[in-house]
Amino acid sequence: MEDASIGASFDDAQFLTKNGQSKELFLSSDASAVVEHTKKVLVIEDGEVVHLKDGDLSHFKFDHVKGKQGDTLARPASVQRALSFLDMEVEQINKGKYEHYMQKEIHEQPESLTTTMRGRLIRGGSSKAKSVLLGGLKDHLKTIRRSRRIVVIGCGTSYNASLAARPILEELSGIPVTMEIASDLLDRQGPVYREDTAVFVSQSGETADTLRALEYALENGALCVGITNTVSSAIARKTDCGVHINAGCEIGVASTKAYTSQIVVMAMLALAIGGDTISSQARRAAVIDGLFQLPSKVKEVLKLDQEMKDLAKLLIAEQSLLMFGRGYNYATALEGALKVKEVALMHSEGILAGEMKHGPLALVDENLPIVVIATRDACFSKQQSVIQQLHARKGRLIVICTKGDAASVCVGGSCRVIEVPQVEDCLQPVINIVPLQLLAYHLTVLRGHNVDQPRNLAKSVTTE
Amino acid sequence: MEDASIGASFDDAQFLTKNGQSKELFLSSDASAVVEHTKKVLVIEDGEVVHLKDGDLSHFKFDHVKGKQGDTLARPASVQRALSFLDMEVEQINKGKYEHYMQKEIHEQPESLTTTMRGRLIRGGSSKAKSVLLGGLKDHLKTIRRSRRIVVIGCGTSYNASLAARPILEELSGIPVTMEIASDLLDRQGPVYREDTAVFVSQSGETADTLRALEYALENGALCVGITNTVSSAIARKTDCGVHINAGCEIGVASTKAYTSQIVVMAMLALAIGGDTISSQARRAAVIDGLFQLPSKVKEVLKLDQEMKDLAKLLIAEQSLLMFGRGYNYATALEGALKVKEVALMHSEGILAGEMKHGPLALVDENLPIVVIATRDACFSKQQSVIQQLHARKGRLIVICTKGDAASVCVGGSCRVIEVPQVEDCLQPVINIVPLQLLAYHLTVLRGHNVDQPRNLAKSVTTE
Repeated sequence: MEDASIGASFDDAQFLTKNGQSKELFLSSDASAVVEHTKKVLVIEDGEVVHLKDGDLSHFKFDHVKGKQGDTLARPASVQRALSFLDMEVEQINKGKYEHYMQKEIHEQPESLTTTMRGRLIRGGSSKAKSVLLGGLKDHLKTIRRSRRIVVIGCGTSYNASLAARPILEELSGIPVTMEIASDLLDRQGPVYREDTAVFVSQSGETADTLRALEYALENGALCVGITNTVSSAIARKTDCGVHINAGCEIGVASTKAYTSQIVVMAMLALAIGGDTISSQARRAAVIDGLFQLPSKVKEVLKLDQEMKDLAKLLIAEQSLLMFGRGYNYATALEGALKVKEVALMHSEGILAGEMKHGPLALVDENLPIVVIATRDACFSKQQSVIQQLHARKGRLIVICTKGDAASVCVGGSCRVIEVPQVEDCLQPVINIVPLQLLAYHLTVLRGHNVDQPRNLAKSVTTE
Repeated sequence: MEDASIGASFDDAQFLTKNGQSKELFLSSDASAVVEHTKKVLVIEDGEVVHLKDGDLSHFKFDHVKGKQGDTLARPASVQRALSFLDMEVEQINKGKYEHYMQKEIHEQPESLTTTMRGRLIRGGSSKAKSVLLGGLKDHLKTIRRSRRIVVIGCGTSYNASLAARPILEELSGIPVTMEIASDLLDRQGPVYREDTAVFVSQSGETADTLRALEYALENGALCVGITNTVSSAIARKTDCGVHINAGCEIGVASTKAYTSQIVVMAMLALAIGGDTISSQARRAAVIDGLFQLPSKVKEVLKLDQEMKDLAKLLIAEQSLLMFGRGYNYATALEGALKVKEVALMHSEGILAGEMKHGPLALVDENLPIVVIATRDACFSKQQSVIQQLHARKGRLIVICTKGDAASVCVGGSCRVIEVPQVEDCLQPVINIVPLQLLAYHLTVLRGHNVDQPRNLAKSVTTE
């Protein structure tokens, strides 16, 4: 590679040398890092090499050919690839009036959710039924409906989003939904069959474990569906079909708007898979109405910003934090705890409320702060009982409840209550996560940590 | 109930009044609490009332009959039930040479595991193949093998034991295994079908959520299998078939010997369900040999007692503790963390090692102690990489590894290594949990908490 003659002989970068003007070249693993300088990009694929020398660029790849003794020899071949133009505006990656990307992305959720749903929901009317249209799936819906199982696979926040949508997917599809953390499926070499539909959820579409799990599922003959936020990502390219979440560029390492858009896409997937039977008609209509209401209700819940900042001030010096949820909001507890853990660097843990008596209750005393998610749904009375028991052990409670329910959840007025707007139960996780995102954000800023690039973490985990 | 005449008219307790001797009556929800005083017991069922007055006992139940206005009237009826005799020795519930039940139960695992396997494993020989015999299942094995799914349902430690055995159950049965925390299945009203086999795991056989989930699965027509430690418990009675774990009476609230016996029973279940195909023959023989080796290897790992006590001394003042595991030992991380949480009242959390980069890595610094389980199996090199990354972030590592592997897991000699004997990979969780049980025990004693009755917890969770 040090030989100048090789560089010269593969020189295919004449576009770079024009009329003596100085020029700049940027190398980046992500388009959003260069868009403020240029929109002209040269995409490099796996196994390719770029050689920059004296302002000239050579681009080639190695073909592996069998040598006479059976050893493989690398033979470089020139690559001729046209420049691409980034379809991205600098504004998209500007922080605008916000101090941090995470803050901006939390606050733009009313817009990102609108974009996610645009053109995909039919509002219904006198002649038309309420319904959902997911273009990328329509040729495969029949096959998906005949599946033995739906296996949903993701990591981190993407897994949590899938878990939040699992109950409605089970309810509307009538097919058993198995949840798999990608690395665990690979570690176990768990069973995946020809008759399974495997759904892969990843914001970047490049998550290493999810990608390996996709290759594993393809080998095993499953129908593979991708749900990503990045159009030409590896997962989007390698799946049989899929849905783009259209949440817009997400730059903060801690995923926020992608999470809520993933839940909405999974709910639309549930509507698309579920048959339009008479018995499910009312529920389907209610879910579709709920989807339409989401952007305005998220805007409403974002008004809790100052309240969450005040709460963060009270929690600033804590070492531990527990979050209890169940049913639709088990995922909310896991995701809320993950946000606090990854950006605020506080040991927070999401716990299934039904497991409280099987161990976690021992930790409860007058010092440990505990968030309980207790919005209205079929599990509400069970959560009221959880609150009473935590209260009896003098737990320091912070309860997220439905607007107007403060008196029903707060025994004796000793706990802090956060009231959120109500929406159709299966979509409530989209609302409920917002105050917890705000809490994690403010805790991080108040504790003096880097919000957008948390210690030790990367945005896309592209290694196993 | 205050009317003496009612008490008198239902008096069926003549056995209590004999020749002027003083007598005592004990009321208890658990046989082990009374066996040191008497072995004669009167069992009381749901909906029954016992009335004690002036040394006389009346036992009756209320039949609910429809009144004329459609209201229900309670009409008391006398109950005549013979005394039962407890088949339990006082020695079983004595602590013997131990200071606490939890300590005793940890140390008697070589014996409890032997009892669990007794009469159920065929060692094989010149004419006979190695095999497993589970009497309670034999009429149902054909049906189980035809299942669409095996759904394993439990709470707390019983769930963790099922999770530990899940990979071998998937491997040998070839049937997808879905894991369900009982309360979550109920909260979601998740799908359970006629073609499913549902396996219910509970030490007491009375766990409220598991029992409700059983009723739910029976309604949905699934074949229900019980795995309990209590012969005539509700779950044992209501399931279609089952296996008793025979671990002996467990009194410490934190389950220890029941956990290891549950894993062993689940592994035997996997062998029983799996067909005796030629391709699986070597693996089956290795698992059976591994089962036979377990008692002696557990005896060996128990010698770590003093080492774990020394480690506990170092951790005594910590607020948080993480445990990383994967594959067969994901469950070990969850269960180890649960033990520390419930008895030592320290915020410990079990984490899937593959999820480390999706959040938990942010917590890692030079202060937080982290246990990594990295014994030899197919995931070993992935765990080595996890250790290197934790080490690069200056994590305070405690590594559980296979005997002789200290140098392979301990980069630069800065971490504390606990070496354990090796056994067939799928049975390794039985060995690996023992040092963590010892750690939790010693931490609790050193921190001055009640080992056998942890704060806020009950042995059997008989309410939802």
